[in-house]
Amino acid sequence: MGKSSNVVWHETHVGREDREARRGHKGATIWFTGLSGSGKSTLANELDRRLYEQGRFSYVLDGDNVRHGLNGDLGFSPADRTENIRRIGEVAKLFVDAGALVLTAFISPYRDDRDRVRNIADRPGDFIEVFVDCPLDVCEQRDPKGLYKKARAGEIPEFTGISAPYEAPEQAEITVNTAEMSVVEAVDFILEYLRTGQYLESSSNQD
Amino acid sequence: MGKSSNVVWHETHVGREDREARRGHKGATIWFTGLSGSGKSTLANELDRRLYEQGRFSYVLDGDNVRHGLNGDLGFSPADRTENIRRIGEVAKLFVDAGALVLTAFISPYRDDRDRVRNIADRPGDFIEVFVDCPLDVCEQRDPKGLYKKARAGEIPEFTGISAPYEAPEQAEITVNTAEMSVVEAVDFILEYLRTGQYLESSSNQD
Repeated sequence: MGKSSNVVWHETHVGREDREARRGHKGATIWFTGLSGSGKSTLANELDRRLYEQGRFSYVLDGDNVRHGLNGDLGFSPADRTENIRRIGEVAKLFVDAGALVLTAFISPYRDDRDRVRNIADRPGDFIEVFVDCPLDVCEQRDPKGLYKKARAGEIPEFTGISAPYEAPEQAEITVNTAEMSVVEAVDFILEYLRTGQYLESSSNQD
Repeated sequence: MGKSSNVVWHETHVGREDREARRGHKGATIWFTGLSGSGKSTLANELDRRLYEQGRFSYVLDGDNVRHGLNGDLGFSPADRTENIRRIGEVAKLFVDAGALVLTAFISPYRDDRDRVRNIADRPGDFIEVFVDCPLDVCEQRDPKGLYKKARAGEIPEFTGISAPYEAPEQAEITVNTAEMSVVEAVDFILEYLRTGQYLESSSNQD
C-alpha cells in the first residue's frame, strides 16, 4: 500500500451546479407559512408527491421530522421560535446545496425570522415564500389536531392567532388562499410558479 | 374555485422506501471520525464524487457547511461539542430519510456522542462508523491548516489530540488507516463495504 502521509490530499467537491445539472431542476426552499390548520403540511406533502412523480428530488421538513429531533430542545417562547426557524432555515439551505427542492411547513409567525432565512440564501431565488392564507375562523373550524380548542381553553399558552401574534408576509412570492382553493388547485398554482420561474427544466432529464 | 374548508385534507407522504426504490440504493449515514488531519474530509469528498459518478444521491456534511451555519452558535467546550454532534446526527437522519447516503466529516471525539447518533437511527445499518485511523504524529506532520502548530503554541485551547481527548471507536464498521492507505484505496475499501452490505443495488436504476 502506498504511503499517503506526504501526498497532497486534493479535495474534489461535487458542486451544487453539478447536482442540479444532473437532476434537471434547481434547488430551492419553498417556505410555507401560515396559521395552524391553514394547510401548510397538506400542501407541502401533496407538492412533494407531485414533484416525486415528476422524478424531482424534493423533501418535506415539518413538525413531524424536526420538532422531536433537531429542535427537540426548543419550546415555544419567542426566543425558541426564532431559534427553531433559524435552524430549519440552515437545514433547508443544506438540502438546497444538495440540489433539492425542500418544502418547509412551519407556522413561522415572525416576519424577521423568515426574512433571516431568506437572507442566508446563496442565490436570489433560492427562497420562495408561500403564504398559506386562511382566515382564523376557518382554521379554527378545521382544527385538525384540536389545538384551537385547547388554546381557547387556556391549555396552550402562546398559541399563534389566539394568544401569540402571526405576522403575515408582505411580499410573499406566492399566496394561496386555502379557504377558496382546493389542495390540487393550490399545488397546481405553485407548480406553475416553479415552471414559469425556470426552477423545473424538462422532466426528460430526470432525478 | 371549490371551497375546501370542509374537505378532509388527506396527507400523502412520499416515504423513504419510495425514494430508495427510485434511486436504487439505500439511505445511510457514513460517519467519518478521526483526528484533525487524519483525512476525514478528503475521504468524504472523494467518496461523494465516486458515488455521484455512479448516479447515487450523496452529500457531505462537514465543517465548511455546518460550523458557520447551523452550528454557528456553538464553540468547542465539551457541552458544545456534544450539541454540535447531536445536531449533525439529526440533520444526517433527515438526509437518510430523504434517501441519501450522507457523509459526515467531523472529529467527533467523544464515543458517547457518536453512539447517540447511532442510536437515533430508524433502522439497523443506517449508521456506518468509519474510523479514520492515523497516528497523531502523522496528522501533526501533515497539519494542513496549521492547527497543530497553533495548538502546540497554546493558541487553540481544547484541541483534540493535544489538549483534549479523542476516544477512538471500539466497534467501527470500517477502519481505514490513512498513514498506510492512499485516498483511492481507502475509498475503494468503503465502496466495497457498501456493495457487500447491499447499500448499493445495481447502478442501472440510477439517481
